[in-house]
Amino acid sequence: MKLMLPSGISRRTFLSTLAALAALPSLLLFTAARGQTDPLPSWAEGPAKQAIIALVKTTTDRTSPQFVPPEARIAAFDQDGTTWVSHPMYTQVMYCLERVPVVVAKKPELKDLEPFKTVLSRNREAMARLSMKDLEKILAATLTGMTVDEFNAEVTKWIVTAKHPRWNRLYTELTYQPMLEVMRYLRENGYKTYIVTGGGQDFVRVYSERVYGIPPEQVVGTAGGVKYGYDQSGKPILTKEPKLLLNDNNAGKPEGIHLMIGARPIIAFGNSTGDRQMLEYTKAGDGARLALLVLHDDAQREYAYGPAQGLPDTRVGTFTQALYDEAKKDGWIIINMKNDWKRIFAFE
Amino acid sequence: MKLMLPSGISRRTFLSTLAALAALPSLLLFTAARGQTDPLPSWAEGPAKQAIIALVKTTTDRTSPQFVPPEARIAAFDQDGTTWVSHPMYTQVMYCLERVPVVVAKKPELKDLEPFKTVLSRNREAMARLSMKDLEKILAATLTGMTVDEFNAEVTKWIVTAKHPRWNRLYTELTYQPMLEVMRYLRENGYKTYIVTGGGQDFVRVYSERVYGIPPEQVVGTAGGVKYGYDQSGKPILTKEPKLLLNDNNAGKPEGIHLMIGARPIIAFGNSTGDRQMLEYTKAGDGARLALLVLHDDAQREYAYGPAQGLPDTRVGTFTQALYDEAKKDGWIIINMKNDWKRIFAFE
Repeated sequence: MKLMLPSGISRRTFLSTLAALAALPSLLLFTAARGQTDPLPSWAEGPAKQAIIALVKTTTDRTSPQFVPPEARIAAFDQDGTTWVSHPMYTQVMYCLERVPVVVAKKPELKDLEPFKTVLSRNREAMARLSMKDLEKILAATLTGMTVDEFNAEVTKWIVTAKHPRWNRLYTELTYQPMLEVMRYLRENGYKTYIVTGGGQDFVRVYSERVYGIPPEQVVGTAGGVKYGYDQSGKPILTKEPKLLLNDNNAGKPEGIHLMIGARPIIAFGNSTGDRQMLEYTKAGDGARLALLVLHDDAQREYAYGPAQGLPDTRVGTFTQALYDEAKKDGWIIINMKNDWKRIFAFE
Repeated sequence: MKLMLPSGISRRTFLSTLAALAALPSLLLFTAARGQTDPLPSWAEGPAKQAIIALVKTTTDRTSPQFVPPEARIAAFDQDGTTWVSHPMYTQVMYCLERVPVVVAKKPELKDLEPFKTVLSRNREAMARLSMKDLEKILAATLTGMTVDEFNAEVTKWIVTAKHPRWNRLYTELTYQPMLEVMRYLRENGYKTYIVTGGGQDFVRVYSERVYGIPPEQVVGTAGGVKYGYDQSGKPILTKEPKLLLNDNNAGKPEGIHLMIGARPIIAFGNSTGDRQMLEYTKAGDGARLALLVLHDDAQREYAYGPAQGLPDTRVGTFTQALYDEAKKDGWIIINMKNDWKRIFAFE
């Protein structure tokens, strides 16, 4: 291939310019090259992808009236059903159920008590009928009463071995590739990305950096109290207590965002009624704001549930028609998993 | 002055090398130049300054066995008495006292009720006798019952006008220059700096970025609940409630650090018994850790109080002899304001 040089530039000047360019920090060249590629390759062209890119462009362009200074670029992501699979049951609940035998081994008096007896029976149908109150007892027994360090060690061990029954893959492999791309894209544009989850703050913090590139201090979740004390050798310890500090669901999401971040998100992602108030709060801010909801309408590649739009009803990540209607009315973006995501998982 | 060139290097090579150096990113040269200057110019040479610099060096040197990866470099600073003046009374309490007339104007029924009556009398001696319970009533009346936005607007207005009676300067000018230098020095070495204060989280967040270079999300403080709701036009609002979520004092400090950061500090600064557990928790971590306590022993330039070391006793920022003894026993560093700080305020 013949090099086409602009007229009036000698070959020597051109070569020395090339040499000078080679001496430039590689970062600059890398950024320039990356700017030309699609930042969201797993997203189909459509309103959701367009809205995300348009928001990033308008909030990072210094000449835009909607420019947002970097310190105010806050992005909030719900986790279960928004950044990873949450069906047939929340991953953290799976952890708790699998911990029951260990807890019962330490406290044999629980063996014949409900709901522990049902969990030990491994009868899936009986387990599916457990009430919210039963689940709360299981969560309290498996998530509290140990030190923070012991809990972290247990979850660290579990999360690198436990697998989802349908795909026979680690739960952390069942993160949505399109959402990982959005997180990276936002961070590359100066956004601080937060997980704002109804799940346990301490649970998600164990793997958030590795899986999402989100450090522990940027995980806002349902939080229990911890109690400062000393072990037998006099060493300070923090013990997880069965005391709820923040229920990071529904109204608890904007309340938790205020407590933990102290600033309103510019963009927020959810997938269920538990995210409604977070998205309302996000959209109510001044300037450009974006609220998005993942609609699980892809039973073949993942799951289909609503009951919005006639999809099957569910107790896990309910997306009601009322939420759908509010989204449409207030200009939130619905992400249709089936059509908006070309690829759901990295392993595909 | 004659340039001394290493033998064997021609003048031409030397000049072209100089030219190449000039083309290097200015950042590199700047860093190199800065590395030669004293990062803590307001600190006298002594054990405190040495300990801080030694910790930073050992935790940032990749070849050191005590190297700490950047994401774990957490520094915690108490505020009142540690990063700014807290005598004769905490700045936030001054704010609350000065807000009482506004609150009473809106709720005239409080006018003849204690402790509001005493505050309205402006009788300093009577005010000095107010009990902790009285103060709590004043704090609840002036810090809750309004939206987060209203509160932020009020504090924003107050903090740029209210002055300390002794110096007749803004409270924010009464930050300690040596501590501002430490914060900057730590950040330049990859540390994330946090305020961990018994003061109100929402209060400190208003000015933390401007005054300390610490963004709102890195302020851990005493936190009340907020309630999500809607105003008359249907716009989402967060209202500050008289409900305590976190009392960020004593054991509440490590508990708050766990809630808000999820990681143990490498270095922590305090000045009173309220910081004891935070410093214990910091020191109990693996590897290099540093705990420091400011001792106010300089009545001439600032204040002198203890009662440690025979200094006058106080209710505001008590530093007991027991704390002093624990510090000495466990290798915490005492910062003697009088001898360790060459300069206390930037305006000196």
